[in-house]
Amino acid sequence: MSETKIIFNTITIIGAGLIGSSLARAIKRGKLAETLVLCDQDLPTLDEAKSLALADVYEIDARLAVEDADLVVYAIPVGVIATVGEIVSANLKTGAIISDVGSVKKTVLDALTPFIPDGVHLVPGHPVAGTEQSGPSAGFASLFDDRWCILTPDTQTDDAAVQKVEDFWRAIGSKVEIMDAEHHDLVLAITSHVPHLIAYNIVGTASDLEAVTRSEVIKYSAGGFRDFTRIAASDPTMWRDVFLNNKEAVLEMLGRFSEDLTALQRAIRWGDGDALFDLFSRTRDIRRKIIDAGQETADADFGRSNEN
Amino acid sequence: MSETKIIFNTITIIGAGLIGSSLARAIKRGKLAETLVLCDQDLPTLDEAKSLALADVYEIDARLAVEDADLVVYAIPVGVIATVGEIVSANLKTGAIISDVGSVKKTVLDALTPFIPDGVHLVPGHPVAGTEQSGPSAGFASLFDDRWCILTPDTQTDDAAVQKVEDFWRAIGSKVEIMDAEHHDLVLAITSHVPHLIAYNIVGTASDLEAVTRSEVIKYSAGGFRDFTRIAASDPTMWRDVFLNNKEAVLEMLGRFSEDLTALQRAIRWGDGDALFDLFSRTRDIRRKIIDAGQETADADFGRSNEN
Repeated sequence: MSETKIIFNTITIIGAGLIGSSLARAIKRGKLAETLVLCDQDLPTLDEAKSLALADVYEIDARLAVEDADLVVYAIPVGVIATVGEIVSANLKTGAIISDVGSVKKTVLDALTPFIPDGVHLVPGHPVAGTEQSGPSAGFASLFDDRWCILTPDTQTDDAAVQKVEDFWRAIGSKVEIMDAEHHDLVLAITSHVPHLIAYNIVGTASDLEAVTRSEVIKYSAGGFRDFTRIAASDPTMWRDVFLNNKEAVLEMLGRFSEDLTALQRAIRWGDGDALFDLFSRTRDIRRKIIDAGQETADADFGRSNEN
Repeated sequence: MSETKIIFNTITIIGAGLIGSSLARAIKRGKLAETLVLCDQDLPTLDEAKSLALADVYEIDARLAVEDADLVVYAIPVGVIATVGEIVSANLKTGAIISDVGSVKKTVLDALTPFIPDGVHLVPGHPVAGTEQSGPSAGFASLFDDRWCILTPDTQTDDAAVQKVEDFWRAIGSKVEIMDAEHHDLVLAITSHVPHLIAYNIVGTASDLEAVTRSEVIKYSAGGFRDFTRIAASDPTMWRDVFLNNKEAVLEMLGRFSEDLTALQRAIRWGDGDALFDLFSRTRDIRRKIIDAGQETADADFGRSNEN
């Protein structure tokens, strides 16, 4: 991480969940703002954030929360970003920069753009980091360290504004990439959205069986299933919105996944061991490259099996 | 773990890979045998095991390895267990107990039974534990601690022999369940085999894309994909044999998975957010039960996100 510095005097984060609260902690850790405003429309959540001393100012009304902000970050489900964007529009300061942390970028860009006043800049962003937990207490300052944050500004966006958001995420501890919003949605469909969908799906399938009890599924989950349950424990609202807002790319990737799975199914039915072995050998290589790229630890089972 | 005790004077493990070498370590840790014989037909693997001082005796020839054994454990791919079982058959001591650690039980039971001489007892087993690593150096003594080991003896099997194998696994540190071999294969199809297959499959799908580069898949894997790559890095030979030997149950579970996935796909296409939200809420519950059952830690992301 580079040396800490104030890039924005006042930063307002809308949404005090896992991501918003982690971002607040990372801003405080790096002393990246003079004033940090945290806003959540849910009073118990806001109180929880307050008791954790995550910010300087706590505000339940988004219109008041954004008034002095040099940077506003939406850390709320993709499906409600535009609604809040419209509500606060008239209260934004000239020169303010608007960003977000949504997992889908094209619909956010399209839906938010009409509510960006002249002299305000929109630089959508997506930090590729998270856990299956939710809420202010689940966050932690290092969540974004060494992870990628993808920014997807429109090509007409002010370069200086994009640069400031990039500087901000680097100061948070992340690596930054600028990408076209549509391409982002395609990349994330395969690296995140479809994996979540099939994890949700297999956990659902397992819980509906007649011949295998739920208690058996739970007892013997260490054989592989439990890794899927972690992903399938992710926030339902956030993920519903992801699938509704990245429909085309998810359906495209899901179609390919299903085709490939049908081929594997056929190989099993006809006893084609070579086809299975070839695929299973090929996939090991990708794992090694992810570890080499620093996006994962090589510890067996993430060290989980060594915990006892 | 209960107090340690010698249950078998001489134990022979055939296969010094991840599971065989972990079992050797756990036996040594618990002082569970007077003499531990480790056998592997691959000389470099056997030499590696020797350099790690995993056993008392090292043997490349399985026929010699089993001669004095009171317990023989096959820790080799399911597809070769019967072949080795036939080779060593004439060398088994009267009263010896034969077991294994294979992930499929019905075909092992059927294939091995003809090669069990009178006075020798077959008690197939499956410790539900593992990592994505392979080889003697990847093993560790605590791999089986608090995990389930499923025994699937035929109903005619000598009760005392089954009891001794059960005592053995409890002394190793595992919890033990006796189950019908066919039911085992159905349970593991959904908790282990199908999860592995879909993990292998999505990693394959991702590596074949044209519009998204491999380097992008690797960079942004933290969004969910990397958990699948860990599973898809598991031993190719072992897993090929699993699918070839548990064909019916895997195809049955895979059929249900695909049906359910098609319904989800339809919900996305038609924008049915309620159907998505309902499933995503339901699956969180299973995760919590797995954590409550002690088969998983509740640490966010297994503590992986806190590593920095």
